[in-house]
Parts: sequence; C-alpha cells; structure tokens
Amino acid sequence: MAGVRRGPIDGLLEEVRASVAGIDEGAVATYIPELAKADPATFGLGLATLDGQVYTAGDLVPFTIQSVSKPFVYALALADRGHEEVLAKIGTEPTGDPFNSISIEESTGRASNPMVNAGAIVTTSLVRGATRAEQLDRVLSGLSAFAGRELTVDGEVFASERDTGDRNRAIAWFMRSAGLLDDDVDAQVDLYFRQCAVVVTARDLAVMAATLANGGVNPVTGEQVVPREVVASVLTVMTTCGMYDYAGEWLYRVGLPAKSGVSGGVAAALPGQLGLGVHSPLLDARGNSVRGVAAAERISRTLGLHLLLPSERTRSGIRRSYRDDVVRSRRGRTRVQTDVLDAEGSAIAVVELTGDQGFASTELLVRLVLDDDTPTRWRIIDLRRVTRVDTASAALLDGLVRRLLDDGVAVAVVEPRADTARTAVKHLDARRFTDPDTALEWAETELLASLGHVDELPEGLVPLSGQDLLHDLAPEVVAEIEARTTTQVFHAGTVLFEEGAVADGLYFVGAGQVSADIRTRSGPRRRLSTIAAGSSFGELAIVDGLPRSTRISALEPTICFVLSPEAYADLHATAPAACAELTRAIARSLSQRLRYSTADVAAFEET
Amino acid sequence: MAGVRRGPIDGLLEEVRASVAGIDEGAVATYIPELAKADPATFGLGLATLDGQVYTAGDLVPFTIQSVSKPFVYALALADRGHEEVLAKIGTEPTGDPFNSISIEESTGRASNPMVNAGAIVTTSLVRGATRAEQLDRVLSGLSAFAGRELTVDGEVFASERDTGDRNRAIAWFMRSAGLLDDDVDAQVDLYFRQCAVVVTARDLAVMAATLANGGVNPVTGEQVVPREVVASVLTVMTTCGMYDYAGEWLYRVGLPAKSGVSGGVAAALPGQLGLGVHSPLLDARGNSVRGVAAAERISRTLGLHLLLPSERTRSGIRRSYRDDVVRSRRGRTRVQTDVLDAEGSAIAVVELTGDQGFASTELLVRLVLDDDTPTRWRIIDLRRVTRVDTASAALLDGLVRRLLDDGVAVAVVEPRADTARTAVKHLDARRFTDPDTALEWAETELLASLGHVDELPEGLVPLSGQDLLHDLAPEVVAEIEARTTTQVFHAGTVLFEEGAVADGLYFVGAGQVSADIRTRSGPRRRLSTIAAGSSFGELAIVDGLPRSTRISALEPTICFVLSPEAYADLHATAPAACAELTRAIARSLSQRLRYSTADVAAFEET
Repeated sequence: MAGVRRGPIDGLLEEVRASVAGIDEGAVATYIPELAKADPATFGLGLATLDGQVYTAGDLVPFTIQSVSKPFVYALALADRGHEEVLAKIGTEPTGDPFNSISIEESTGRASNPMVNAGAIVTTSLVRGATRAEQLDRVLSGLSAFAGRELTVDGEVFASERDTGDRNRAIAWFMRSAGLLDDDVDAQVDLYFRQCAVVVTARDLAVMAATLANGGVNPVTGEQVVPREVVASVLTVMTTCGMYDYAGEWLYRVGLPAKSGVSGGVAAALPGQLGLGVHSPLLDARGNSVRGVAAAERISRTLGLHLLLPSERTRSGIRRSYRDDVVRSRRGRTRVQTDVLDAEGSAIAVVELTGDQGFASTELLVRLVLDDDTPTRWRIIDLRRVTRVDTASAALLDGLVRRLLDDGVAVAVVEPRADTARTAVKHLDARRFTDPDTALEWAETELLASLGHVDELPEGLVPLSGQDLLHDLAPEVVAEIEARTTTQVFHAGTVLFEEGAVADGLYFVGAGQVSADIRTRSGPRRRLSTIAAGSSFGELAIVDGLPRSTRISALEPTICFVLSPEAYADLHATAPAACAELTRAIARSLSQRLRYSTADVAAFEET
Repeated sequence: MAGVRRGPIDGLLEEVRASVAGIDEGAVATYIPELAKADPATFGLGLATLDGQVYTAGDLVPFTIQSVSKPFVYALALADRGHEEVLAKIGTEPTGDPFNSISIEESTGRASNPMVNAGAIVTTSLVRGATRAEQLDRVLSGLSAFAGRELTVDGEVFASERDTGDRNRAIAWFMRSAGLLDDDVDAQVDLYFRQCAVVVTARDLAVMAATLANGGVNPVTGEQVVPREVVASVLTVMTTCGMYDYAGEWLYRVGLPAKSGVSGGVAAALPGQLGLGVHSPLLDARGNSVRGVAAAERISRTLGLHLLLPSERTRSGIRRSYRDDVVRSRRGRTRVQTDVLDAEGSAIAVVELTGDQGFASTELLVRLVLDDDTPTRWRIIDLRRVTRVDTASAALLDGLVRRLLDDGVAVAVVEPRADTARTAVKHLDARRFTDPDTALEWAETELLASLGHVDELPEGLVPLSGQDLLHDLAPEVVAEIEARTTTQVFHAGTVLFEEGAVADGLYFVGAGQVSADIRTRSGPRRRLSTIAAGSSFGELAIVDGLPRSTRISALEPTICFVLSPEAYADLHATAPAACAELTRAIARSLSQRLRYSTADVAAFEET
C-alpha cells in the first residue's frame, strides 16, 4: 500500500536525479585497479526518514564503501572504548594536509582526526575484539547494523587494495612509530582494507546516515546501534573533516555533516531530520563525487535542510491545559460532591504535553506553570503523549516538580510506563499514574477529603427516593416510578450489558458500583465512568431507544432498580404527569452532561 | 509577575556561575591599554529563549564587544550586499594562522574568512552607506537591532584602540594591496575600531545570539534584523572559525556556533533553541574567556545542547484527524441532511496541523494522507495552529495538494490570514478558508448537493407540525403545544438574547435563520451553530432553567414560535401526556447532541 503511491518526495528525488545526471565532469578513481572498473554513468540516490521510510531514485548498484566507512567505525570505536581512550590517540581538529598524509598532530602526538587515513587506521584498531577476526566481525556486524541488513566484503576489491596499499602501510608503520598502533601492522592494515571493501548501495548509505541523525537508533530496524552520546561526536568530525579540503565550503553551501569516499559514495545526515545516500563514481579534484555534491546541494537547497538553519521548533509542546472545574475525572460522584468540584475544582490543574520535549518546549511549560496565578493545590503533568524527554527537558521538569513541591503543591505525573528507571521525572515525591483519569480522580478525592466530603459509598441500600436523578421529584411521582421498577442483583464482574446491546431499561444503582467503558480504536478498553449507589445509567437509551453506547459491568456485588421500556411506556399511558417529570429529570441530566462535554471540547479548542 | 518567580533555569545559571566563578586562571588582555583596566573578577551570564525570555546571573557590567561583533557585522554585510559580492572578497575556510595574521587565501586571493581581523575589516567595509558616517550608522543601528536596545561606542576604548592599532592598519593596507579594500584605509580602520568599541553586557550578547538562533528575528523586539537566508551562513563561519584555534575541539565538546573576543565576551547560538552570552575578562592562551568556555561547556552538557545531537523533533505535527461523519460543521442541518451526512460524511476528511512544520513532520503528513484508504472526496488541511512552514514543508505541502487535486479530491486549506503572498500552500486550485467550521460547511454543502440534497431554506413558513424536534409526535400532541406558543418576529441583526440571560422559552424557527455563538477566552466570538427554519433552540434552558449558554442573533428577518416556561408548566399541568412526549423529544435531541459531542472529544483523544 505505502510505497506504491508515489508522493512528492519520490518526485523530488527523481527531479534531482534527472537534473544532475547530465553532469559528466570528473573521473573515476584509478589508484585501486578494481575501482577503475566502475561504470561512470551509475547514479543512485536514497533518502531515509527518522521513522524508517526510505525513498530511492536511480541505480542502486552495489559498490565498496571505502572512506564512507570511517565515521561509522569511529562510532563503533567510541562505543567500545569511550571518549577518553579514543581521544588519547585521535584528535578532532581538521587538517590542511591531504587525506593520505603521513603525519600526526604535532602539539599532541595524536592522529589529527578520524576522517584522514592515519586516524581511520588507528580508529579501526580500537574496535572491540581480542583478535583481528573478532575485530573484523565487530566492524562487519556494526556496519550491517547501521545499514539494517547483512553486509559483506568484496573479495576482489579487498585483494586489489591489499596488493596496492603501500601508502596505507607506510601510514600504519608511522602510526606504530608514534605509539598509536600496538599491534601487528600488516594484520591491522588488512582489517582496514576489508572495512573499505564492504559492499553497500546508495540506499544503505541513506539508512546508515539516518541512524546517526536518529541518535544512533536505526530507524528501519529500531536497533540502538551505538549509544546516543557518541553520535554528536561522530557528526562533529563529519562536519569539520568529512569532505576532504571542501569541508568549510560544503558546510557553508550544503550544511550537512557528511562523508565521501573514492568509490563515489556520499553519506549525509541532518540530526533529527533525515539521512541521505548518493552514489556516482565520477570524482572531482578533491576526491568528492561530482554528482554526489551537486545532488546533495540541490536537495539541501530545495528542502531548506541546513544544519545551521533553525528547523522545526516545538515552541509549545502543550497539547491542552485544563482544570477540574471544567474537565472532570470519570469517577461517578454524588450531587453534593459534584457541586463541591464545580466550585473548588479549579485548584486541580492538568497540563498535557505532546511530542519530543527539549529545552525550548519545556522552558515554556515551566514558565506557563509558574506564572499561572490561579491558586493551585494539585498539579497533574500528563506525559502520555510525550515521545522523548531530552537532557535539558528532564533537568527542567525535575526543577519544576521540586519547585512546585516546595510551594506546597501536590504533583502527579502521568506516564504510560511508570518505570522509575525510565521515568522523565525522577523526583520521588511526585505521585505516579498511568492515565490522567486516575490522576484526576486521586486529586478530586483529596480535594473532597480536605473539605470534609469523605469519599465513601452510601451505607445500606439507596432507595429510589434517595437517587440523584429523582432528587427534585415529589414523593408521589417517585412512588409511581417505584411501583414500576424491578430489583435485580449482579455478582461482581458480571457484564450487565455490552455496547451495541438493545436498550432494556433505566438502571438506578441501589448498592454496589458499576463501571462504564468503551472499546477504543487503539485496542484497550477505556473507562468512561464509575457509577455508584445513588446514581443511574441508561438515560440515553430509554429516551432515544438506540443501542447501548457503553458496556456496563459490576465492580462489586450490585443491586439495581430497573425501569424497563415497557414500564416507561406504562408510566406514560397511566401516569403521564409523573412520566413528564421523570423525562424532564432525564433531560436535565443530559443537559448537564452536554454542558460538561462542550467544556471538554472547548479545553482542546482554546489551548 | 513573570521574572519575579525564579524557576529552574535561574537556578541552573546560578549553579553554573557559582561553580565556574572559582576559576581564576588566565589573564586580562593588555594589548589595548584600556582593556587592561578590566576587573578580572567580573563574571556575567545571559540566556535568551526564542520567545523572548531572558535569564541572567552574575554581573551585567558593560564592556566593549571587540571580536564578538564580527559575525553580526558579517550578517549585515551579507544582508546589504548579497552572498555573491561578499564571497568574492571573503572566504569561508578556517585557517591555521593567528587571528591577526597579515595574509590572504593563496588559491583565491580572498581574505580567508570573516572571523579573522583581515576578513572582518573587509566585511565592515562592505556594509551599506555612501560615506563612513553612514556606514558607522549602519553598524551601530544594526548591532543595536541585534541587541534590542540602543548601543553606543566607548570613546576611551576607541581612542586607545586607534592609538595602538598599528597591526590592524598593516592588515588593512595589505588588504588594499590585494584589491580587497577600495577606500581610504585610515577611515576604514577607524570604523572597524569603533565597531569593536561598542558597549554591551552579557545579556545583550545572549539576545544577539538568540536573534541568530531565531532565523534573524530578535525574539525580544520581534524585529527581523537580517533576512533568514543569511543566518545559516553566519552560523556556519561561527561553527568553523569562531573560537580562534579552538574551533574543532569547541564544536566537539560544546557543540555551539560561537564567537569570542579579547574583552572576555562569548556569544553562542543554538539554532531553533536559544542564545547564550558570557562575559569574564580572564583569557586563555588562545584568546578565549576561560570562564566563558567553562560556563558554556557546563550549560551545554547539563542541557544536552549540542548542535549535532538530534534535539526536539516534531515527528508528528498532526493535532487531530477526523471525518465529517464524526465531527460536523456548526451549520444547522435538517433531519434529512443530517442523516445523509451521518451516512456519507466520511468522504470529507480534515487533518489539523500544529507547531512548526518542517521536513520530518510534513513528510509524515503526506504519507498518512496518501496512504489513507478511506474514500475521500474533500480534504481539508487546517493550518490555523501552524507557527511556521519552512522551505521543505512548503514544497511537500504543495506536492501533496497537487497530487490530491490530480486524484480528483477537492482540497481546502484553512489559514488564519488567507493572504496569498504569505500562504503556505501556493496552489491556486485549493480553496481557502479562515476557519475549519466554514471549510467543513462548504464540503458538506457540496456533498449534499452532489447527492441531490440542495441546501435551500424551506419555502414559506415551517409550522410546528413541520419542525424537526416534533417530527415523531402525534398531531394532537403538536396541537396542544401549538395552542400554547406565541409568534415573534425579529429583524436581521437583532440579538434575541445574550449568553447568561434568564431562560425565556423554547424557540422554533418558522422562517429565517439565527446564529448561536459564544465568547472565547481569546477574544473573538465563535459560532456554535446556525439554526434555520424547521429547527429549534433553547432546549437546554427549558429543561434545567439555567441561564442561556449562548448568544442568539437573527441572521435575517426571522419568525419564531416560542413556548415560554409558563406555557411549558401549563402544558405539564393540563396536558401531562403531551408534556411527557415533548420532554422526551427534547431529551432525544439532547442525547443526539451528546453522542456527537462525545465523538468530538474522542477525535482528540484517539488522534
């Protein structure tokens, strides 16, 4: 289904491919004989989004990755050894020297950076593994995890590189002389040649780059390939050293951290946005793919993808903000309790966040909450729809919670998995809930208790005369209704009726408690309300005769007084004034629910 | 109110200030005698958000801006002359040479970049102005616009720089010899000295940096100081050349485009997030403020603010998505029309977007819309809550609209200002609306017309027997009601009653049309519904006796049949069966409205 329909991004890639394919300047690399066989007409493009959609255009022919492997193996080395050990041997400053220079950083004695061959050979020696075979396995499985499929080494290209790789051997021996390589130099250089001969396509490079853009998580497979904390370092050296001597101008014109290689590959990543892969073997004088540079520049310009342009900002991550006088928990309440919550519920405030939370959005949240002048005694922070909380956001959220608690505000945090290891708010004094309804119910119950309205079920049986719905009716009217009801008893757990069932009456709960819930599109059932003794259900169905809109089940042993549709008809026929009174009471109750429901919608509309 | 309460960011800045203030390494710059007078203990911090909140800590003493002026004047030069003219004289590659090197880029004959003195002096010569005085005015007013307040030159520092600035004179003469300065060298160097002697505070630097982070718009004043398209270029040269010889490591460790100066200032910007300003005169061997570097590194680490870390992503900018079978326009419809829309309304689809739209969020939107299998004939794209549409998003939105129109789908775009020059969707064949309600009404009317239900008002007077509310009632019941109504006539524009008014009856519209609207918190009135002949209003108030929840006004000459509360009471007393029937009809209508309203809330909950 998806992928069959070709949308605007397919069109864009196709346009770029067509407009750039005509460029035939440059030359195929010849310093490795095997590379000279590449077809200069080959040209492929890939674009991978951070939720795993991959778009491609042109030829997805396999080619050897060459230097484009460098940033990915640098990521593996950082993941395996940590920053300190890697930075002791390889620096981060760009160098004016050629990529295959036999030199070290004079002032520190390190290889200058991991994007030149000297630094890359040292980098490869640092990946995990007790033997060269284990290290090769780590490099291959690591690159495969970046690409999201199993990659292999091209034996012929490897043999060709090995046979002609004397300059890299010179570099490796020089690194050993500087104390930067400990081990068998020949084996280490062989490992590096194999790394360069791994076979990929433009699509693979797009996914690999998108994995960096996505904080180390492959967006197609969902695998965390390298820890998030190494990604910024990798993208930094790509930014400053990735495009040979073209780095400064590349960043100015294209604005994407990138790495190119002599086989004509370019991988470019825009953090938080996408990965690009291009393959075209014709190289310019600096060693970058001519069409690769042109295509990346065109895509960047068309889409405004510059690292240093402010991109999508979530200025507000606030989905809605409301108070309990307007939006109520679904816990059934008595008339008196409802009146109290109408009057005092504004002391309970809920703020619902959405999307990725970072510095800007959380800073705004903090300000809105702290500057809100409405007296607040309970503050519920609903994080159900939050997709990620970054370092800045977590620090600010924690500071906000601490500040609220210091001010004497009770704080509840709603998180889908209330898993303390992964929680966004570490503060132990914040209450935890997995849905906002239960959090609201908790705050309402505390509020009611603080005002002396202890939340207890009525003792004994609540007769019809004590039912909320019939509160305003004269005793003789209640008597007329009572004469026509039957008493029914339900065990705990019994389903009284399913949604969609034929309406079989108006139920008054005399004792016990029932739950009303509905199926949701996403699967789990969602509670609409609990209905306790003194409250009723089935009003909608008795007036409109439509099927039940909810499922009702008994939460405990429950006694109901039931007025069937036939009894209602009989009331109408034989005691029409009583029927009018009852119907008006039902209409009044519906009207109250409608007023709440409208307020609920307005809370969305006005946020 | 805001600013008095000190939240977690104030706490963070205070902590950073306290932890870094103890560092007293380094030395105050002495090469300009006036700078040597700076108090080494001075230490101030500022942080400005992109919605104009500025946090500060420590000493906000005035100091001269020195080299921190370079990127801002480069922005002015790019704004005044365009990229081509500026790039012809000043390159973008970092150099290994000292900042005050007397050299040019050998391969191109340009000054290497605008962050070294040679490039900066040429940059200043390029700002707009026929005379040096006009250029000075441009530099001063430009820097003032970046800071959001009027800045002035420190005369003593300027004199001191002029008296001792021989090396800068040498550079300027060398630039002139290379053909990069056209004009009176002394006057040009004087202008540059004045630029360096502009007086700022750490707070000013934070706002100036935030203006760059905000795409050229000063977040405090709202002024577009330089065009958005020059900002990426300025931040690029700050990234690669802003921190003297420390640029590579600075980007690796701190990850913020930045510029430092010899007076101890540092300005750093994270695009889309914030601006930082630090001032502390003790300099390290490279010429960067010791505490400035330490404070920026600490803030960056605590908040996870690295340019190359994926930050807040709006993966989904979709606020909600619904179809007309569930959420309806507020245009009143007849029973028959309502039945048709219940059955066929799913052909009308609305998607509501929120926040900043960029590549990632719009790509996802495109995919969701194109992959949606529900047959759709009208597609409404609601952009009311969209704060910005970037280049990528605009290209994708336009592609989506074109694709939908090609597929035969009618497209409507909702934008608060339907201003074609600023519209996010350029496509002329898309309909434009300023609110989603009117867009839904348009689509519903088209849908009804396509099925032969022409949307006309009933001709002549609709009697009570033709009223939708009384549709199921027996003629003798309608007659009982009719006997108790009065007929009232309203001119177009008459307000029948205001919200909050005492309920004075149930109104049946016999001819004409009224509008129900409410006040919103944000100011303008919002239409809830239009009610045409055959429909009624005032049901809620007649059953619960509460004040009117909406204002009702006549859109045209209107005739109503009104059942007053007294008449309703009389009906109850003298014709109770008819009263029960009427009340049940009202309850049924409320129940239908409640079912819609619940669906409306669910459309939010389940998106």
